[in-house]
Amino acid sequence: MTDTARYDRGLAKLIEIYGDKGTNFIASLQDIAPDLGRYVVEFAFGDIHSRPGLDLRSREIATVAALTALGTAGPQLRAHIHAALNVGCTQQEVIEIVMQMAIYAGFPAALNGIQAAREVFSERSEKVE
Amino acid sequence: MTDTARYDRGLAKLIEIYGDKGTNFIASLQDIAPDLGRYVVEFAFGDIHSRPGLDLRSREIATVAALTALGTAGPQLRAHIHAALNVGCTQQEVIEIVMQMAIYAGFPAALNGIQAAREVFSERSEKVE
Amino acid sequence: MTDTARYDRGLAKLIEIYGDKGTNFIASLQDIAPDLGRYVVEFAFGDIHSRPGLDLRSREIATVAALTALGTAGPQLRAHIHAALNVGCTQQEVIEIVMQMAIYAGFPAALNGIQAAREVFSERSEKVE
Amino acid sequence: MTDTARYDRGLAKLIEIYGDKGTNFIASLQDIAPDLGRYVVEFAFGDIHSRPGLDLRSREIATVAALTALGTAGPQLRAHIHAALNVGCTQQEVIEIVMQMAIYAGFPAALNGIQAAREVFSERSEKVE
Amino acid sequence: MTDTARYDRGLAKLIEIYGDKGTNFIASLQDIAPDLGRYVVEFAFGDIHSRPGLDLRSREIATVAALTALGTAGPQLRAHIHAALNVGCTQQEVIEIVMQMAIYAGFPAALNGIQAAREVFSERSEKVE
Amino acid sequence: MTDTARYDRGLAKLIEIYGDKGTNFIASLQDIAPDLGRYVVEFAFGDIHSRPGLDLRSREIATVAALTALGTAGPQLRAHIHAALNVGCTQQEVIEIVMQMAIYAGFPAALNGIQAAREVFSERSEKVE
Repeated sequence: MTDTARYDRGLAKLIEIYGDKGTNFIASLQDIAPDLGRYVVEFAFGDIHSRPGLDLRSREIATVAALTALGTAGPQLRAHIHAALNVGCTQQEVIEIVMQMAIYAGFPAALNGIQAAREVFSERSEKVE
Repeated sequence: MTDTARYDRGLAKLIEIYGDKGTNFIASLQDIAPDLGRYVVEFAFGDIHSRPGLDLRSREIATVAALTALGTAGPQLRAHIHAALNVGCTQQEVIEIVMQMAIYAGFPAALNGIQAAREVFSERSEKVE
Repeated sequence: MTDTARYDRGLAKLIEIYGDKGTNFIASLQDIAPDLGRYVVEFAFGDIHSRPGLDLRSREIATVAALTALGTAGPQLRAHIHAALNVGCTQQEVIEIVMQMAIYAGFPAALNGIQAAREVFSERSEKVE
Repeated sequence: MTDTARYDRGLAKLIEIYGDKGTNFIASLQDIAPDLGRYVVEFAFGDIHSRPGLDLRSREIATVAALTALGTAGPQLRAHIHAALNVGCTQQEVIEIVMQMAIYAGFPAALNGIQAAREVFSERSEKVE
Repeated sequence: MTDTARYDRGLAKLIEIYGDKGTNFIASLQDIAPDLGRYVVEFAFGDIHSRPGLDLRSREIATVAALTALGTAGPQLRAHIHAALNVGCTQQEVIEIVMQMAIYAGFPAALNGIQAAREVFSERSEKVE
Repeated sequence: MTDTARYDRGLAKLIEIYGDKGTNFIASLQDIAPDLGRYVVEFAFGDIHSRPGLDLRSREIATVAALTALGTAGPQLRAHIHAALNVGCTQQEVIEIVMQMAIYAGFPAALNGIQAAREVFSERSEKVE
């Protein structure tokens, strides 16, 4: 596989999950760190998220859980709550995943994750989505 | 619901997921912090893992992802890899979840998660499971 | 003990420590994750903070220290600085706890903790406390 | 104050809290990073732990809580559980501090902290304490 | 060496690296935690950054990398990106350090580090640097 | 560039930095997660560490600093202390980097990093290096 094919596969996956939000995000890195945007497309989406061994919904459950637990990645957590909803999770399932992190990473992590979910849900409802 | 009913519900869920390993773990806390063991049963299993809004397999995917990403909970990560396999994940799915954490928490987190998976897989194969 | 008794005990403890701020916080979760608010009342305040083995002042010293060290829980750190002052710590003692974290979690953690303390002290002085 | 006076004050505080364990620890750094040992004595014990604004027992409660929550400092957590017991905390109080971290940093952090406490309590009982 | 000599050495080093930004930062702590400001000057700059065994450029590479990876120290990361540029790193080198953290701490850490770099670069260009 | 070319470039860089240790590490992943080993070669070494914008010595300084600060990646920290020494850092420089992390991530992180350095230095001296 050439780099171009890998990039194209990653970009298609990114758009499948995020739509315009995904391409806008990559574009936002062009002026300062375009190669980091390219690695996101090639490695994160072209390599990992394109792998056949686990469905996209399960992958987003894993990511929302991990980012809630880490507590250091606010913009990325919000992006992946969008992604989870885009690939088939319900809002209630997102809340369940985030609440469950109270066990494994403490209540502050879960409470801050709920705040992120609130912002995403609100943004989506404003779009009459 | 009384405390007893809640404890019993949690214990049943713990045994459903872990079998004897679960009750042995709670027993191991009796001499030093029995109430912490009780809270694990009541809150983690009686409250959270007994909730209807998300299936057990998704809950274990979330937990394996979070503990791999945090990187500070070796014994608990191994326990939840067992749990994920017990509730229907395949070994390959566990590997996929752990590998995916390279994106969100870095390669060291993923590599140490793979080592945990190796130990669990090996322990289970020795039991001709 | 029934769930209701446990909730009531937790709510009384929450109000003892936080006053109106506590009940407002629980109310703020009603529209999105009311059960998480319930678990905060039942588990965090009804189970743990109601335990007899350690005085409330020591419990808040422990919490302010931990949240300063973790560095991922800004809103919760500010809430517990309020709580520490409410249960008998002086402002100077809060500063001492936060400064000490420079040893165990680094100067950035301590400096960000001081900023949280500054905001809390300022908010309280505006109320002619 | 000269560097020597500061070092001596720190060393006296270290010995007050840890006894021989403290001086042995500093000695163990002589062959590889003696200056780091010196900074521990001068800054951690000569500057911070010698400050008048907070009692030693409260300082150790703060440290045990923070190190349990961080989950990355096993040897240091065990050392500070010893220290907490040396300056007046009971074993039950140590258990309470560690258990409380389940709220703020998750159950794995608390469970691993209990294991650290178990090792320290066991070591001390073998010395016919 | 007396405390005064150590403070003066630290202050000179702080000014060498940060200029006015450094002294303003220390001044900002005077009303709430002046001793923490003093420890920053004495320990961080007077002790560590004044050591001869590693050049200032390498020290700032280490600090930018660590703060990007930790992801909990936004103001300090921005300050040290300034510092790295002040002691001889190019903007491209800063980007390289931050991007490399994607391997060791995950893409969210690197992406948030790039955002910090963007803010610092922008602030400096407004000053007709 | 094809995947094969990228893999080969990464493998050459891995061997340049680590020698046999590098290829042995990749081989150790073959039975459980061979693709993770391939991503380490392709992304970490073929993409990032092969970039021209920063010298290898600076890259290893950044990595040793970050892994010491994170405190969750023992095996990887030891591997990168080897790498830092392989690409031109002296043992004293490694000690300086690790000690400096006391400022940014706390003394426990630095002390545990020193212990990692001790193990690496000892292993290398046994080989009459």
